[in-house]
Amino acid sequence: MALIVQKYGGTSVGDIEKVINVAKRVIETKRKGNKVVVVVSAMGKTTDHLIAMAKQVSKNPSDRELDMLVSTGEQISVSLLAMAIHELGEGAISLTGGQVGIFTDTVHTKARILEIKADKMLEELNNNKIVVVAGFQGITIKNEITTLGRGGSDTTAVALAAALKADLCEIYTDVDGVYTADPRIVKNARKLNEITHEEMLELASLGAKVLHARSVEFANKYSVPLCVRSSYNTSEGTYIVKEMDVMEEPVIRGVTVDTSEAKLTLLRVPDQPGVAARLFNKVAQKNINIDMIIQNVSEHGHTDISFTLNRNDISRIKPLLDELVSELEASEVTIDESIGKLSVVGIGMRSHCGVAARMFSALAKANINISMISTSEIKISCVIAEKDASKAAQVLHDEFELDKE
Amino acid sequence: MALIVQKYGGTSVGDIEKVINVAKRVIETKRKGNKVVVVVSAMGKTTDHLIAMAKQVSKNPSDRELDMLVSTGEQISVSLLAMAIHELGEGAISLTGGQVGIFTDTVHTKARILEIKADKMLEELNNNKIVVVAGFQGITIKNEITTLGRGGSDTTAVALAAALKADLCEIYTDVDGVYTADPRIVKNARKLNEITHEEMLELASLGAKVLHARSVEFANKYSVPLCVRSSYNTSEGTYIVKEMDVMEEPVIRGVTVDTSEAKLTLLRVPDQPGVAARLFNKVAQKNINIDMIIQNVSEHGHTDISFTLNRNDISRIKPLLDELVSELEASEVTIDESIGKLSVVGIGMRSHCGVAARMFSALAKANINISMISTSEIKISCVIAEKDASKAAQVLHDEFELDKE
Repeated sequence: MALIVQKYGGTSVGDIEKVINVAKRVIETKRKGNKVVVVVSAMGKTTDHLIAMAKQVSKNPSDRELDMLVSTGEQISVSLLAMAIHELGEGAISLTGGQVGIFTDTVHTKARILEIKADKMLEELNNNKIVVVAGFQGITIKNEITTLGRGGSDTTAVALAAALKADLCEIYTDVDGVYTADPRIVKNARKLNEITHEEMLELASLGAKVLHARSVEFANKYSVPLCVRSSYNTSEGTYIVKEMDVMEEPVIRGVTVDTSEAKLTLLRVPDQPGVAARLFNKVAQKNINIDMIIQNVSEHGHTDISFTLNRNDISRIKPLLDELVSELEASEVTIDESIGKLSVVGIGMRSHCGVAARMFSALAKANINISMISTSEIKISCVIAEKDASKAAQVLHDEFELDKE
Repeated sequence: MALIVQKYGGTSVGDIEKVINVAKRVIETKRKGNKVVVVVSAMGKTTDHLIAMAKQVSKNPSDRELDMLVSTGEQISVSLLAMAIHELGEGAISLTGGQVGIFTDTVHTKARILEIKADKMLEELNNNKIVVVAGFQGITIKNEITTLGRGGSDTTAVALAAALKADLCEIYTDVDGVYTADPRIVKNARKLNEITHEEMLELASLGAKVLHARSVEFANKYSVPLCVRSSYNTSEGTYIVKEMDVMEEPVIRGVTVDTSEAKLTLLRVPDQPGVAARLFNKVAQKNINIDMIIQNVSEHGHTDISFTLNRNDISRIKPLLDELVSELEASEVTIDESIGKLSVVGIGMRSHCGVAARMFSALAKANINISMISTSEIKISCVIAEKDASKAAQVLHDEFELDKE
């Protein structure tokens, strides 16, 4: 008998029919002799709908009250799922984050989990019940309702699995698993049977939406066996495993394309100590995330600083940069919104030389120009023209033969 | 400085605009120098909508899960109201029943309040905040969410007022207050400035929907000063007061008409001990409420038993009665769905003789036939034909001069 934590996202419980399908799936797992804890998100667009109501009341609603409001979404889906499980003949009990005892810090709308009490869940599992837990939410020691922010339900599932020492945490979603590339871009993209935590983290932060980075970190930290599967079919999905447990260790695990960023460049900045710090401090104060940063070689006491960030943040960062240009007597700021970020990820890179050279050669052979490069231990990213992005992804997918196991 | 508990029903917070209006009203009360606790119901049809979702999942959903589901309705309205109050420049905090510490028994969907903790509310009031409490809901000592059943939010408000020793509990609704009769039926019906708890209780159980009987009982038991007012205007409303505090003590306070009942008669039942007990035990087991009961004088060892109940319960009671007819060898069951119950209520009755005679004479003079009579210390009810009900109400309203103060 195994203890399995399953998580179903908002689209998987998008309407009553889908809730009933999830109930069937959960019951099937239980009837195979497993103990099951299910984490669910709010149904479909419920959260968006609740936030829209709040915005009608106030442009800037209090985070504490937003959490009170938004947390009702998951409370609705857990109670309906428990009812659906009852209707199909199994015992079940729904629990809010507070009822489980998912204690968080007091940072409303993006709280972090501090501690999870396992006893209530274990008690109900021992009563032969399926335990249905509201994802995305927790409670402070002062009994205030909090939410975990983006990717919250995935994090709830992994955290519960850690607290319960579950044998497996299954994240159900609307795709079959993690692919070598986005199948909409790369026609022969292949579903991966397994991937390491580190690779998954890189992919998640590069825009693969299948799993949130935070839940992967959590799984890694607490050694939670994690897998991503489709809630619409019974195919095996992708297992996210520790590096030492990896069977195959290819050089490259996957290719990603991200066309959500823009490249900004401050031209002819005086090359003095502290200039970059001043720039990025200002940006950080506005809570804007910078991705890649490149500072070119200094020439005649001046340098160019380029960086990338989400296109949505341009309107917020532009006034800061204009200010800086005049303060620093730099020449100007240029903005390029037509870039694509192309990345290859794989832990195999650590033990293989020449991956970057092979990547750049393949792109050059395809006549694709590279304007920025950044690397980590298991990742190489290039900024290229947005129009070349899909073609470039296919080129690299072929170069590293990712379609073959 | 007074401490005031205000309660706003579902129609008063039916949409965002109305929520904002309630916020204004609450703030007005606070800015007059009062401490304010507000109790709100779920917005408009939210509760019905949630129950409809549950019914799609299961014909007979678990009460425990229904409470989980339905309690989200009030959580949504309190958080939105708190946001609206913030937006208008006052401090506010929303609290679920559980966060306040409204402890109930474990009877889901119709829980009774056992204890209310006042400390959290007092702490927030002392922080100069308006405290916004979710009506209709509570929590068990095991942290299970419960709801209080019909009239729940009124009960929450009165119970909070009792726990806080509030100076006044105001129930805001869509009518101006309690009337001498339903103004849609009796054209010169007059709004009452005050009414005693006992009278209000009788009126509530006779179908006056303005206040739920349970909240009136609570107010009486804990001496909570209670008033009913309109959320759409600023008129004074009706105060529900202790008998000793009543200024005017008319013979009759009001007239009510209830056309929701039917009259059932078992004909020629053997007049033996235990027959009535058998009948009404069977009915009680089905959780059907019986209103008036009349057993006629026995004749040749047989009697007729008549009683009234809500017309909606006829289909459930009919099989029981058919069974009983054959068991008891009674002759048959007749059902009359075209009755009206006409009642006069007033504590003045206690000290005035001849009220019944005066009522019956007035009806006789108007050619209205009476088929059943039942009385309590402060109430007389007659069953008449439904078609005569409105006319009869006007006749009695005139007879007892209820249009005059």
